[in-house]
Formats: sequence, C-alpha cells, structure tokens
Amino acid sequence: MDFFFNPQGIAVIGATPNPFKGGNAILKNLIAGYTGGIYPVNPQYSEIEALTCFHSVRSIPERVDLAIVFVPAKKVPATIEDCIAKGVPGVMIESGGFAETGLDGTALQQSLKNMVSRSGIRLWGPNCMGLVDAYRGYVFSFMAPGALEHGLLRGNISLVVQSGLLSAGFLIDIMNHYITGISKVCSIGNKVDVNECDLMPHLLHDTNTEVVGLYLESFSDGRLFADLCRRSDKPIVLLYGGKSRKGAEAAISHTASLAGNQRVISGILAQAGVIEATDFKQMIDICRSLAATETHPERPGRVAILTFSGGAGIVSSDFIEKHGLSVAELSLSTKESLKGLFPEWMPVSNPVDLWPAMERHAGSHIDVYATALKAVLRDPSVDAVFVHTYAGNIRIKLDIADLAEQTNTAGKPAFVWLLGNREEAFAFKKEALAHGIPVFDELSRGIECLATVFHHRKPPEMQMDLSQREDAGTLSRELTHLLENSSGPLDEHLSKNILKSYGIPTVEEYIVNDATECEAIAVRIGFPVVAKGLLPQAAHKTELGLICLGIHDTQTVLTSFNDLMNKMNNNGKVLIQKYLKGSVELIAGLIRDSQFGTCVMLGIGGVMTEVFNDVVFAMAPLTERDALDLTTRLRNQKILDGYRGETPVNRKALAEILVRLGNIGMMNPRIREIDINPLIISESEPKAVDATIVLQ
Amino acid sequence: MDFFFNPQGIAVIGATPNPFKGGNAILKNLIAGYTGGIYPVNPQYSEIEALTCFHSVRSIPERVDLAIVFVPAKKVPATIEDCIAKGVPGVMIESGGFAETGLDGTALQQSLKNMVSRSGIRLWGPNCMGLVDAYRGYVFSFMAPGALEHGLLRGNISLVVQSGLLSAGFLIDIMNHYITGISKVCSIGNKVDVNECDLMPHLLHDTNTEVVGLYLESFSDGRLFADLCRRSDKPIVLLYGGKSRKGAEAAISHTASLAGNQRVISGILAQAGVIEATDFKQMIDICRSLAATETHPERPGRVAILTFSGGAGIVSSDFIEKHGLSVAELSLSTKESLKGLFPEWMPVSNPVDLWPAMERHAGSHIDVYATALKAVLRDPSVDAVFVHTYAGNIRIKLDIADLAEQTNTAGKPAFVWLLGNREEAFAFKKEALAHGIPVFDELSRGIECLATVFHHRKPPEMQMDLSQREDAGTLSRELTHLLENSSGPLDEHLSKNILKSYGIPTVEEYIVNDATECEAIAVRIGFPVVAKGLLPQAAHKTELGLICLGIHDTQTVLTSFNDLMNKMNNNGKVLIQKYLKGSVELIAGLIRDSQFGTCVMLGIGGVMTEVFNDVVFAMAPLTERDALDLTTRLRNQKILDGYRGETPVNRKALAEILVRLGNIGMMNPRIREIDINPLIISESEPKAVDATIVLQ
Repeated sequence: MDFFFNPQGIAVIGATPNPFKGGNAILKNLIAGYTGGIYPVNPQYSEIEALTCFHSVRSIPERVDLAIVFVPAKKVPATIEDCIAKGVPGVMIESGGFAETGLDGTALQQSLKNMVSRSGIRLWGPNCMGLVDAYRGYVFSFMAPGALEHGLLRGNISLVVQSGLLSAGFLIDIMNHYITGISKVCSIGNKVDVNECDLMPHLLHDTNTEVVGLYLESFSDGRLFADLCRRSDKPIVLLYGGKSRKGAEAAISHTASLAGNQRVISGILAQAGVIEATDFKQMIDICRSLAATETHPERPGRVAILTFSGGAGIVSSDFIEKHGLSVAELSLSTKESLKGLFPEWMPVSNPVDLWPAMERHAGSHIDVYATALKAVLRDPSVDAVFVHTYAGNIRIKLDIADLAEQTNTAGKPAFVWLLGNREEAFAFKKEALAHGIPVFDELSRGIECLATVFHHRKPPEMQMDLSQREDAGTLSRELTHLLENSSGPLDEHLSKNILKSYGIPTVEEYIVNDATECEAIAVRIGFPVVAKGLLPQAAHKTELGLICLGIHDTQTVLTSFNDLMNKMNNNGKVLIQKYLKGSVELIAGLIRDSQFGTCVMLGIGGVMTEVFNDVVFAMAPLTERDALDLTTRLRNQKILDGYRGETPVNRKALAEILVRLGNIGMMNPRIREIDINPLIISESEPKAVDATIVLQ
Repeated sequence: MDFFFNPQGIAVIGATPNPFKGGNAILKNLIAGYTGGIYPVNPQYSEIEALTCFHSVRSIPERVDLAIVFVPAKKVPATIEDCIAKGVPGVMIESGGFAETGLDGTALQQSLKNMVSRSGIRLWGPNCMGLVDAYRGYVFSFMAPGALEHGLLRGNISLVVQSGLLSAGFLIDIMNHYITGISKVCSIGNKVDVNECDLMPHLLHDTNTEVVGLYLESFSDGRLFADLCRRSDKPIVLLYGGKSRKGAEAAISHTASLAGNQRVISGILAQAGVIEATDFKQMIDICRSLAATETHPERPGRVAILTFSGGAGIVSSDFIEKHGLSVAELSLSTKESLKGLFPEWMPVSNPVDLWPAMERHAGSHIDVYATALKAVLRDPSVDAVFVHTYAGNIRIKLDIADLAEQTNTAGKPAFVWLLGNREEAFAFKKEALAHGIPVFDELSRGIECLATVFHHRKPPEMQMDLSQREDAGTLSRELTHLLENSSGPLDEHLSKNILKSYGIPTVEEYIVNDATECEAIAVRIGFPVVAKGLLPQAAHKTELGLICLGIHDTQTVLTSFNDLMNKMNNNGKVLIQKYLKGSVELIAGLIRDSQFGTCVMLGIGGVMTEVFNDVVFAMAPLTERDALDLTTRLRNQKILDGYRGETPVNRKALAEILVRLGNIGMMNPRIREIDINPLIISESEPKAVDATIVLQ
C-alpha cells in the first residue's frame, strides 16, 4: 500500500486548465506539495499548468506509482485498463457517478471490482477525495487549492472517512480555525477495493499518528474491523452515519427484531474498545483530546475546577457528575496554600472561583492561575484540572506555557474552557494548540472529552479458538440429526434440550403424553406448575392461548391438559414445567448480523422487552470479560444488583450463559437465531424458561 | 421598577480612578452610554474621570434614581442608609462578600433585607453585575470598558442571570463573535430583594424582547415563577445550575426519596412550558433560534436538507430522527423541478446533495441554492429547511438575502450549518444575523434548536380554584379527626380510605378481627387473596415479612392470619385484600417541595421503581391536560399503550387520579407526603393497591 502514501511519480488523469474543475485543483495541489514527477493526462492538451500533458497514461515515459483519476464515470474503466497496461500499482478514483447513483453506477463499480480481481491493481475510491498527508505536504485531492490560510497543520490524529467533506471543507475549516492539526486523512468513498481494514494497519503503525478517527457509513468487513480495533494500542474514535436507516431483514425471534442497525454497531464498538462519536466536530474534539493526553483508566477522574465565574464552576460540576467524573475534594493543605491568594472573607473550595483573587491582585506581579495550578496539581486527590479563562481581559491572565509545563510535570491533564474577544481568543487557541493543551468553547464538550481520558480502556484480548474449551458440551445423535435436517423454529422443548446439552441451565420440564402421565409429572415436579401446548412451527404460544400459568393442584393440571389438547386438535404435545417465580426477567439471544456475523444479545424485560427497549449486543465468541462487560452496559443494570432485599444476580453465571450462547452460534452455522425469553433469575441464578432456536 | 431600567440620575458609590478596579469600570461604562446625570461617590476624591466626585450620596444636589454600589461588603449597609436618607428608590449592589461567602456574609445580607422591609427601598444584588440594555446603550456594570469591539449588538433576546459571567465575559464573547444581539441582560446575584419574578413581567412586556433566557441557581418563589412562565406568550428558556447538589430533606415515602432537586425542577418547567437548557452557549443558541422564527407546534416538522456533502446529509438525517423531527418526503413535482439542476445520472432525494449541481454549474450564472430552495420551500410536505454551506469556496455560493426573503415568504424556517475559512465564515455569520437567519457550527446543535421550533407549545391555562369542583369528595368525621390529630405515616388501610373518600379507586379490602371473619371475608372477596399485617407506624411491610401474597384457599388464608398475628405479637391488625394481577405497576405520589410546594409524582415500576428510575413531577393543582401530559413524559411511557396484546391503560382515569392526588394535597396542609405504590393497572383501570399517607 506504500505506493498510495509515498508514490514515485503521479499521473493525473482528467487534468484540465479550467480552474472550476476538480482535475485542475488536483494538479495545483500536487504542484504545491509533491516533489516527485507529476504527469497530467488529457488528450486535449499538450501542456497544463506549465507541465507536459500526456495523451494517455501509457504514453508517460517515467515510472508512475499512482494515478489519480477525475474523468466522467463511464470513461473510468478504460483509464484503469490503461493503468494496468502501464503497470501502475495504485489508482485513486475521485470521480463520482458509481454505486451512489443507482443501478447503472453499481454495475459500473462492479466492473472495477472485476479488474481488481483480474489484475491485482489496487483501486482507492471511487467517489472520494483521496489522501492528505500533513507531514509530507501531500494533497492528493481536488480540495480547493490555497484554501488553507496557514498551510497544512501537522498533528497526531489520522482520519479514515467515507465522506469527502471531512478531508476537504471540514478539514480546511478546522485547520483555519486552529482547532487541530492532522497526520493523514484518507477519504475512501465507495470502497470498491481499498477499505478501512486495509488502511488501519498502516495508520496504527504510523509514528505520526496517536489517535485514529473514522467516519463510516458501512463496514467492509465488520469482524476484521472489530478485531483490528481490539488489538490497537492507539485510541480509535468512530462516527457512524446512517443510524436512522432501518434494518431490512425479516425477523422471527425477538432478538432479531430488536437488532436495529445502530444497536448492534454500538455494542460491537463498545466491546472492541472503540469510542463512538455522534457529530463531526465532536469526533474531532474527542480525537484531539486523546491525542493531547495519555488515557488514565486507572484513576477515578477527580477534577479540580479553576474558574473566574461561580456560575461556570457550578455548571461544570453538573457536567462532571453527568459524565461519571467527580469534583475533587481538595486536601486541607491545598486549601491552605490557596488561601493566601484570596481576600480574607473568601472560603476556598472546589470549584475554585479565582475572581476575588484576580480582583485583589489585578495589576500586580502575582500570577493567580500559576499559583492556583501549582496547589491543585500537587494534591494527590486531584486527577485533572479544568481551567476556565478569558482572552482579552486585563484581570484574567493565563500563561499557556506555564500551564503546559505544570500539567506535563504533574502527569495530570489540564483542559481549558475559553471565552474571549475574537482576535485574542484565536491567538490563545493557536498558542494552546502548539503547547498541546486542548481548548473548548463549550463547558459540556470540554467535560465530555475529559471523561474519555478516564473512561477509555483497551479491551482484553479476544480468544478466537473455541476448540480449546473442553466443557463446551455435546449433542445427542438425535439432536445433531435435528439440527442438520430441520428448518425454521424448533419448539421450546427441543430448543431448551439443545441449550441444556451445551451447558445452559434450563427450567425443569417434561413432555406428557396422557392424563395419567401429566398428573404424575406435575406431582413429581411439585406445584405450582405451568402447562404449555407445543405446536410444530408455532413460535407465539401466548397469542394462541397455549400457556396455562399458575397451576396449583392436580385437578387444574388435568383440566389444562385436556384444554390444551383440544385447542391443538390433538395435534401437538403438552409440556409440564416447574413454575419459576423470578425476581428479574431477562432476554438473551443470538443473531447473525450482515456486517458482524454471530452476535449475542442481552436485554431486560421478558415479555416487557419491547417496552423497556434496553438491550445490548456483542460479537461472538465472547470472553468471560466481554460477557461481564455486557451485563454492565444495560441502561437499567441496577436491576441485577438486587432491590428491596433481593439477593444480587449471579453475574458470573449469567456471563457463562452468554459465552456459551455465542459458542453455540459459532459451532452451528445452521442456527440462524436463538431467543431465550424469559431468562428468569430465580434465587440469584439465571434459568432459561422459554426458548426458541430458529434454523436456516 | 422603572428606576432600575431608565433612571434619572445615577450615583456610583465606590467610584475610583484606578483602572484595575470595578468602581472605575462602572463609571467609564456609564460615561460611554448613559446620558443622564452621573455622580461618582468617594470621600477620597473630588473628581474622577472629569466628573465631580461626592463625599456621600447625600451630598449630591440632584435627583438620583439609582445608586450603583461597589464598596467592600462591610461598608455596604452604611451606604444603603445614606441612599434611604437621600430618597434613592433603587440600589444595585455589585460588590461580593455576602451570603456566597458563609455565615458572616449571610448575616450581612440579612441586614440588607431588613432595610428593604423597613424603608421600601428596592435592592438589586448583591454580588451581581447589574443591567445591560443594548437599545438604550446602558451598561450598569463593571464589565470591562471597551471590550465590545463593535459596541452593543441589539437583538430581541433578554436574559435574567444569577451569574455575572453571562452579563459580562460571556456576553462580550457572543457579541464579538456576532452570535447574537440582545435587548436587556439582568444580572441578579444573590437576590436579597429583586428577583426573577420581579423582572419577568417587565421583560414579558418589553417590546424589544421576543424570548427570555434565564440562568438560575435557585427559585425565589417557585410557584409564582412557574405561573408567570405558564402565562407567557413569549418562549422562555432556562438553564438551572446546581443539578448535582443532592436534596437534603429526610424522606419517608418513596415519592420523597425520588424527588431529587433536578427532577422536580425539570418536571415543573416542562409543565409550565419552559424549555430547559443544559449549557451556556446552547441556551443562547435555543434563544436566538426562537427569536428568529415563529414556533410551529401545529406542524409535524418535516425537514428538507440542502447540502454539499452526502455524509453531512446522512448525519443530519440521524439527528433529525433523534430529535423527533422527520426527513421530508419530497413530492414528485419537487423532485422534477430539482432534476434540471443535476447531471443526468444523479437521482434526486432528500437530503438533497447539491454538490454535483455545484460542480456542473461552477462559474455559470445559475444560483444552485436559490433554485433548490424555491423548489423545496413550496413543497407542502416540507415544514423547514436545513441548509449546509461553506464560506470561501468558489463552487459553494449561498445568497443570504435571497435565503431570508424566500424563507420569510414561505413562512417556513431555514437554519444554516456553516463551515468555512475564518474571515469568510465570520462575515457570513454577521450578514446572517442581520437577516435573522440562525447559523450553527455543529449539525447536532442546529437540529436540536430546529426541533424546539416544532416542539415548543404554550401550556394550557392553569385552574387555581379548587372549590369549584363539586366531585372533590369529602371525608367522614372519623377520617377528618385522624387527619387533624395524627402524625407520621398512616397505615395502608386508613391511607386508602382517605384516598377512596376523595374519589381515587382502591383495591377491595377489609380488616378482619378473627379467624372466622377472615375466612368469611376471603370467600366473599374471592380467591386468590392477599393478607397483610398492619402495625402502627410501620411503613415497610415487605421488609418485616408482613405480606402474604397469592393465597388460593381457606386453609392457607387461616394459616396466614395466624402467622401474621404471631409476628405482630397480637399488636396489629390483619387486612385481607383482593389479589390484583396487573399488566403494569406504577407509583404515584405527592410531595411538598421547598421551592415549588405541592407536587404530584408519577413513576413506573411498583417495587422496581428505584431500578427503572423513571419518575416525573408536576406542580399541583393539575389540570386534566397537565395530568395527561405527565403520563406522556415517562421515558418508558410505551408501557401504558399495552404490550403483547394487553389493552392500553385508561389514561383518562390515570390522569383523574393524579389531579385528585394534587387536590388532596392542596386541601390538606397537614399531609406531608403520599405514596401510592403500587398503583396497579388491572384490565386497563388503575387501582391503588398499597398506599401510605404521611402527616406532618
């Protein structure tokens, strides 16, 4: 892939002298920053921008590592053929008019894919804006030439984006406003060949990259992507566009119907340790925060606030609590050393309102911020400082160089909230960026980003090898035969027999064939019991009236048996089950996701699952740690800790069920969906009370 | 109050020539914008800033309507005495050092309060930054003189703020960045006398004010404030600082323990039609959005997106769905008229990606935005337009004057998301502000603000007169006596008798005195039944093992009776109750809030209330509309619509219970708290199954 990032010789196919066309912008951007050979290609011209123009890429006499193509879509395949003939290893197709435009464009894009398979050429795009590399000064893109007022800003963030905007207009905006610098931005467009999984390894090894940010609208290989993220030592921040598009798959189980596009993606990103962003600038804010400071998952995140406004201190405290950090309790000695700054009447506490000190020392040589910073940074009960300041006020003076030195020495991050006059604030941001101090316009954003410093943690290694597990369980010959030869939903008894064989605890239950057997079984299980009618292929027993709950005596169990047999026209089977009164009802399940493959779900609610809408997903196979984490990601996870004197749920046992559920899916490709609903917690232990396995 | 807003003659007590002191800044700000008499007061000087300086306010020979005080806190009472002696009607105390600093300061502040009661003088502050009036050019504040690069920007937002920041540094920042103009900003500090309720009527009648924004850290009179907001025809936006401070009151009932500061406030604000903000700039963004456009609660909020980036269109769509708006389905004729702009291969849909049209028409005279705007604005299925643009790109050209004219003519709001080069973007914002077009830096914020245009609605009139209700219910003499003479929690049977007398449906139940009666009652009610032991003053029956659920036969009911009597040492009473199997369990209650008085609560969960943490509050008395709205504010309100074939809850009956609950509280001041938990929904109808009334 190095020919994309550091090519020797670049052809611009579709070069033109017309300044309103992209083919001209690409050329100008190369001339401005690329030092190798540049070869415009356009049969209509012999020279463009003072460079010799070639009729075809094949007529270029020199080595060409990269061709950048900006010709109408229909003409693209022929230019690729030329590149193959010339032996060009990589092509960036920046023209649009492919799969994004409908059926014809999709066919055209497929023809490009075929060329890749046939020839081994690597195609980047189409419908993209190529590459920007701030360190090498490369702009392989039709981004407006000269739009960067101060040139490319270097930084330690790299981006992979499925929208040209983020590598052009947006990039120009954030660089011109000195919000951040970057290392590389890869705009990958329709991803006919080169995709995020190809580029990630390159960026994760790039010495100028500390954080990778992505904007994606699809995953080319979801499992591989998750695996790359999981192994990464660099923080990864991802914004997914298209959350509102509904999943189109037909769903039989609850699990599948609850598996909206976004919910599965969010679950897998959380499992892989990826930070999910929600908006463009917010994504950049998170990236630049993590690029400026080490993450500290080992510390609780106790924040000292230095402010010039009591109100801003209070609102900051609200956000600190909301984002799971805490307002630091300053030690007595810290308060003592701060006291000297203030008028006598001023009580010192966190948030530290420096205004009275600023009023008192205005015009003097005393540096209020520096003194206060020194005191709070050496306090062992402070993990970070949130500094409020104003650019352009004679009383409020923050020395950025001193702040940077103090925060680096202490090894504790300092984030700044800035107000100010326009020019002074801009100058402040510029200087702060040079010193690696993140500055924010909004309190909420500053705290949101600071929270990622303390909450982001690398996930545990994934264990991919299932065969190692000796206790995975085995199926009887009968059940194996069933799995191999049936299709559609299995009845709950068969479903639970399979789950039980694989080590998942299920409720005690028996099929009864006649009244005598029914009575005997009910007595053996012990009242109260439940009677259910099992009809082949019928997943919705409740709606068909095939469930009799709360049977307390032999008389009722016999009546229920006869009722059920009548309702089913003697066609089905009757199941007698122990009645489990649960403290909590859960749902657990398995789906096959089109982007991420086998995924496990956990949710709250049993029959109320849709009401509470509190479900989480992870990609199988799960480690035990993954499964435990999954239980903590439920919005209402407090329910698992016991309430009103109930004992807490055995989370280890619950995690074990989730791990086994994932493994069942990995081992049995014919299983399409599994629903355990309800998974009832009875005396702390989870048990599958109803279940459906859906086969292909 | 007019002497504060338009005084004839202003004394500045604490004036000084030292440019680092607030007393100098106040004077300079007055000289710059106030045309009446300005009288510096300071015994140490005879002249300051070329004005005659007076020894005391009493020695000023002219009329003084307003004194602005900036002297050390301890000296403030004496200066107020002088003002009283001089007959000054209003004083703004801008010095700090009062209740915000501890006990001594609180005592000092109380002495000011006493002066108000004694003399009738009105005191504004202390610890505040007074008043800014952009129309009159008044700055009655120690805000840095000359900090406004372009002077005060006039607009139609007024602010009432409990933090000086928002009327000083913050205001300078937003004006210097041309984010918005304002009408008046009132910084009210510690509110010893003048508070938000005094100022609101003035602002609601101010012809230059269209929207009122508030930052508060406490409510001086919560009920009056809510009432003022409810009657307001102008939108009110409020940010409350101090959400993270815990309520300190001891709580007996669940209702009281769930009534965190923030939850009660949020409930009452929603009920009063106030839009709750979360951060400073976000508050201003909502204010300026509502100031720029009429609200449209009657329209569904279908948004057309005009963008230059497919990715930005997709992310916008995600936010539109998230904020309860929808992406408009463009009509066929709209698509037809848009088609002409685009290359042939380009399918037209919403979001409308204008980039291919911009590329096609770059350098021509065709105005792509104007043409597209015309098409979408006349589409009857479009309620608003979200326009993305870039300032400083030759292909992307938006004519703001045309946009303003088109959107005004159509009566449909147009909000703009802007990227751009620094200078060009600033010029764009300035022009857009002049044309009344709201511009945003972040997609999410633009959509969040657009959503308030469609979701904000004026609440219904409040009916304060309870005596009109003929069906309010009456208590027996026995229950009246109990209410008047008991204290602490009443047992559940008495509590429900009171609720029943006031028309709240309760479960069928009877006190039984011996085994014979117990059996007879159980048979009369019909099995299954519940037996409960009632001990005086014991609110927590579950924890004491005094509840026997699911009794199915006479044998068991007798055993339970004996068990309960034994457990209570024959000290309490046994209650036999019909067992209600509910489809939904709710909690409803009443509290007395220190800021808002009698409030009603509704929540989901019964015994699981704390787990789901889904409770909402409103101020009593409630209208039926209030009560119905309350049911829709529950996060999991879907539960009330029925699930898995259950019939929906009778919301009208539920609302009736909430209205009656509030009225019980209004009529009986001795009731401190009421808990109905669970309030069970059985066959659509809500019934109180357990309840506790706590008396003072």
